[in-house]
Amino acid sequence: MKDFFYPESVAVVGVSPSPNNLARAIVYHLSEFRYTGKIYLVGPKGGSFMDHPIYPTISHIPDQVDLAAILTPASTLPEIMEMCGQKGIKRVVIESAGFSELGNEGKGLEEQLVTIARKYGIRFIGPNCIGVINKENGLATPFMPFRNTFNSGPLSIISQSGGVGGALLNELASENLGFNKFASIGNKLDTDENDLLEYFLEDKGTEAAFLYLEGIADGRRLMEIAFRSSKPILAHKSNTSEASTRIARSHTGSLSASEEVVNAAFRQCGIHRVTDMNSTLTAIKAHGLPPMRGDRLAVISRSGGHAVVAADSAAKYGFVLQPFPEDFLRMVESRLRAGVIRLGNPMDLGDLYEFDLFHQIVSDTLAREDIDGMLVVLNYNGIFFQDDSRSLVGKIKEICLQGKKPVALCLVTTGEEWHLNRRNHPGFPMFTDPEEAAKALALSRDFCHRNITSFKEAETLAVDQQKPLAILTEAEAREARQLTTAESFEILANYSIPLAPWGQARSSQEAATQAAALGFPVAMKVMGEGFIHKSDVGGVLLNLNTEAEVREGYERLAALMQTTESKPKEKVVLVQKMVFEGHEVFVGAKQDPSFGPVILAGLGGLYVEVFGDVALRVAPVSAAEALKMFGEIHGSQLLKGVRGQPPGDLETLIDIVQRISQLVCDLPQIQELDLNPIKVLPKGQGCLVVDCRMVLA
Amino acid sequence: MKDFFYPESVAVVGVSPSPNNLARAIVYHLSEFRYTGKIYLVGPKGGSFMDHPIYPTISHIPDQVDLAAILTPASTLPEIMEMCGQKGIKRVVIESAGFSELGNEGKGLEEQLVTIARKYGIRFIGPNCIGVINKENGLATPFMPFRNTFNSGPLSIISQSGGVGGALLNELASENLGFNKFASIGNKLDTDENDLLEYFLEDKGTEAAFLYLEGIADGRRLMEIAFRSSKPILAHKSNTSEASTRIARSHTGSLSASEEVVNAAFRQCGIHRVTDMNSTLTAIKAHGLPPMRGDRLAVISRSGGHAVVAADSAAKYGFVLQPFPEDFLRMVESRLRAGVIRLGNPMDLGDLYEFDLFHQIVSDTLAREDIDGMLVVLNYNGIFFQDDSRSLVGKIKEICLQGKKPVALCLVTTGEEWHLNRRNHPGFPMFTDPEEAAKALALSRDFCHRNITSFKEAETLAVDQQKPLAILTEAEAREARQLTTAESFEILANYSIPLAPWGQARSSQEAATQAAALGFPVAMKVMGEGFIHKSDVGGVLLNLNTEAEVREGYERLAALMQTTESKPKEKVVLVQKMVFEGHEVFVGAKQDPSFGPVILAGLGGLYVEVFGDVALRVAPVSAAEALKMFGEIHGSQLLKGVRGQPPGDLETLIDIVQRISQLVCDLPQIQELDLNPIKVLPKGQGCLVVDCRMVLA
Repeated sequence: MKDFFYPESVAVVGVSPSPNNLARAIVYHLSEFRYTGKIYLVGPKGGSFMDHPIYPTISHIPDQVDLAAILTPASTLPEIMEMCGQKGIKRVVIESAGFSELGNEGKGLEEQLVTIARKYGIRFIGPNCIGVINKENGLATPFMPFRNTFNSGPLSIISQSGGVGGALLNELASENLGFNKFASIGNKLDTDENDLLEYFLEDKGTEAAFLYLEGIADGRRLMEIAFRSSKPILAHKSNTSEASTRIARSHTGSLSASEEVVNAAFRQCGIHRVTDMNSTLTAIKAHGLPPMRGDRLAVISRSGGHAVVAADSAAKYGFVLQPFPEDFLRMVESRLRAGVIRLGNPMDLGDLYEFDLFHQIVSDTLAREDIDGMLVVLNYNGIFFQDDSRSLVGKIKEICLQGKKPVALCLVTTGEEWHLNRRNHPGFPMFTDPEEAAKALALSRDFCHRNITSFKEAETLAVDQQKPLAILTEAEAREARQLTTAESFEILANYSIPLAPWGQARSSQEAATQAAALGFPVAMKVMGEGFIHKSDVGGVLLNLNTEAEVREGYERLAALMQTTESKPKEKVVLVQKMVFEGHEVFVGAKQDPSFGPVILAGLGGLYVEVFGDVALRVAPVSAAEALKMFGEIHGSQLLKGVRGQPPGDLETLIDIVQRISQLVCDLPQIQELDLNPIKVLPKGQGCLVVDCRMVLA
Repeated sequence: MKDFFYPESVAVVGVSPSPNNLARAIVYHLSEFRYTGKIYLVGPKGGSFMDHPIYPTISHIPDQVDLAAILTPASTLPEIMEMCGQKGIKRVVIESAGFSELGNEGKGLEEQLVTIARKYGIRFIGPNCIGVINKENGLATPFMPFRNTFNSGPLSIISQSGGVGGALLNELASENLGFNKFASIGNKLDTDENDLLEYFLEDKGTEAAFLYLEGIADGRRLMEIAFRSSKPILAHKSNTSEASTRIARSHTGSLSASEEVVNAAFRQCGIHRVTDMNSTLTAIKAHGLPPMRGDRLAVISRSGGHAVVAADSAAKYGFVLQPFPEDFLRMVESRLRAGVIRLGNPMDLGDLYEFDLFHQIVSDTLAREDIDGMLVVLNYNGIFFQDDSRSLVGKIKEICLQGKKPVALCLVTTGEEWHLNRRNHPGFPMFTDPEEAAKALALSRDFCHRNITSFKEAETLAVDQQKPLAILTEAEAREARQLTTAESFEILANYSIPLAPWGQARSSQEAATQAAALGFPVAMKVMGEGFIHKSDVGGVLLNLNTEAEVREGYERLAALMQTTESKPKEKVVLVQKMVFEGHEVFVGAKQDPSFGPVILAGLGGLYVEVFGDVALRVAPVSAAEALKMFGEIHGSQLLKGVRGQPPGDLETLIDIVQRISQLVCDLPQIQELDLNPIKVLPKGQGCLVVDCRMVLA
């Protein structure tokens, strides 16, 4: 990937002297950003632009070329790629649109491009993108026009949309925050976000990465990369609704992913998900300050009202407002002008007109061992104390950067003063509002305290796969969409997952014998393809107390089976011991197209249906991660034992989650499974799975 | 209130020629804002400032004065107010600090001020404020320095903090949105937010009102005013945490209010609560556009990525993306340059370079009858198509203002272009991000569709108060903190609230007789002061099935009563028919210091404890409002009949809520009450209150 950003020569393909020619903007950028390498222009009409001759084809370029940036009609691309290959160009940025985002015809073109690239060992970015920018060497390939008003900064950007990426660059310029590298990846046919992210996380110039994605190519690899990252990763994953999917497909050919899975996966691997420009900028600013390592905050404000608002936000984000030392407060109070303010934390310095003392207060406070960071509100209106206030901004920046703890500075001033302070302090994040400042400090703290367990930390059990594979092969052979309950139970048993005692019966006599062996009362259930929702059609009989009831039950279920299309010859019925005790919990799993196996858990009944009280993880999960899942489920307070009920056996439940997690990783043939309900017995007594459904891929 | 904003003459009290004198800023403002009336300065040292003589006292002013703005030490205020009274000044703005926000001494001073004001019929604003600004006549009394960079706009502002109010003015100036009137009310000793809001809602120049409040003086009156308002009211109520309360008390002497009550009350009366500067500005912009009267939105964007992001936001806020007519789409497609984009809604016009057509698309679309508003994203970078894009901004503004439907315009461009467009289009709200634009349109739509039922619409039942008052008088006489269950039940019965059948027993014989009359099984409960949590101490016996069990039960409860301090002579026990059926619901009520009687409802058990699934209203509530409460409670889906259970008797439940609502309004002596559980029987069979607790004030 590095070669995309540090080529020593670039060919811009598709340039003509016409004023409507868009590729000219690429040439303009290489000059505007002061690209340090050599530039060659290519276009069939020849001529020259900006003092560079335009070669008719790539082959006409006399020297070696490291990177080609191409903006020509889609149909010309295969030929041009061939020429790149012959010329020995190994990196190509394809900015042309008109590929898979338009439908099948474009797809065919894309396949050709991939074939040619493989043949010559070419890696390419795009098509349908605006390419790359590297602030370090002035490489800048966008055809979308930018002036180089950007500072260098710690952030590198990967964007699936040139427009959204460009908007972020503009915002960073407005805030004077800067960036290091930028890549727009469009249809990401060859190079995707993972390739670039992996590189950015190793890249010396990059201290944080931002991704704008409309689709996720390989969520699992994204997570693996994020697990290893010590740098913050921010991501705006858009395309979250039906209407968005329609437009995203025609924009970058992206399909949408399940929102719940994306949210869970990002949290699990420590990617911070942002949802719009405001939350993006706040997160970028958060990581532009020294890290907030704890909860202990000091708030200092030039306005009492802002002190109140800052205290609201500090509480909202879980900060502790440490008390100031008493003698320090008395010293400061003695220096107030009118003496009409009583001091504490937050400290209202509206009545202090000694700017040196203000400086000293910030400096002394940040140096205190019991303070992890500060939120400072500086109000001034550019009329009185203008120079003092401006100079204070610079001093606060110094205190922050030297002290290695964050000072989130809120400037409450006029637009003109904002502009001036931003110009004076490139790269130093400032805030307009205490709420945003507190949120940024909280993001920084949460990043410092992130507690990630990677896939690797999931324990692997030794499981003999022979039986499950035999069951699945047999089911595939009969083209089953779903396993029978008995088959599902056998697979679960093979993974040592505890089941409510059960048996199968092929006759009323067998059913009676099974029931007597299991002990009354029992439940009886139909099995088979025709009964996906077996309780809705009367296929589940509960609470059968006598042999006679069981016999009668068998006959009823057998008659029911006779009504299905398949009319099975053998009428096999499940007989199961009733379990009355225990909280009802479910554990489910499914194969996600982008993230692979995921696992869900929640409490049964209304908690899920009404409150959506479910925890989700990408599998495999460690015991620690499974425990965190139940920490997230609000209703799992029930399992801790409320209102005199004994606490449930959470340990066994966590063990079941781990086993199911391994099961769905081992057996991707199972598209979806659902253990529901699982009865969680009192602590020490385990859990019992009562019912299970396994759907095949 | 009008007289505060339209005085023909103003005296500024506390001016001295010293450069540190803060009152000089008031004089500066009157000049800077071009105040149209006469100005008089007052200060003991005399001299002159800005060509105005400084009179030693108010009495020395030769002419009549309509308004005095005072910034002198707190201790001088009583004397100055006296002089104002003698001079016939009827409106005073007290900007000095050092009153109740500092503690008891300041409280005494405040009492003196109120007495003097009453004596002379003076109304005053403050103390501890920055006073008023009126853009119409240039009246501007803040001592905090502003340049008059403000446009006139439709918004008027009431702020309890000068700093926060001033920050909003700066932001409005940066956005070039303007305001009409501004009042900072500080400790609001005489004039409060309600007085000013009531005036603003009648004031011709004000089309929307914003309030920043640290405390709510009289929540009930605020609601009454809001109920009558046809103008949008936005409020930032800060001071929401313990730490905030500490600083707010010393800032404006405000106490905090219950967050839940404030949220519920604001929603109930249609006040839109904002929480920070960002949400404030979005709401102000929302009401600066023509109203969004429905859900049908068209999205047009110059960037595909922004179209995706806009579609995400449109879905998030519940908008419907109306399809464009097919022939219209084909017409536009035929005009695209590269022809590489397929069109729909959202419409990606990244490939359209005819700006007149862009204009026509917006104009034609907004005119369509099936479109309620538009979200337009305009990307340009100030290099190519700069003039076309600038001129398009102006044209879109015209389309929006003339079409009387909103066009939320997102400008995605450089800081310089933003600045220029804002300067060119004062008062026209523009957005940086589709998310903010969609949110603003949603706020406007929700305001248009607000469905408010005021206190007046609550039906009043004829209730004979004699018995409840007798019970309360008797309870007060014995200094009870809480009524007995029997007393509570009698009050409920008096309000025709249905109870599970019950009786009282003073002996085991009486208990057995009662139980037989009620029908087995019965419950028995101790009563009396010593048993607030009666089930925790074994004071509740359930499911007694025989006479013998009831007799034994009476003896056990009587023995339990003997163990209390009071050792009552008469051992009265409640006997109640067991109710097994029905969903458990609770209805509660309490007296809130700021909003008066409030009423709560929710489902029993974990739904409340774990999910906080409670609806709250300020009483009295109408049937419509009570119905809305159960619409808000997620768990009330249970009452609709899920999983084969019959639906519950919601009508009776709503009737109970209304009766309790009237009860707590009628009987403010009851500080808190809790009907818990209420058993909701199947539809048509009513509800039964099983237990009730009433706590006295």
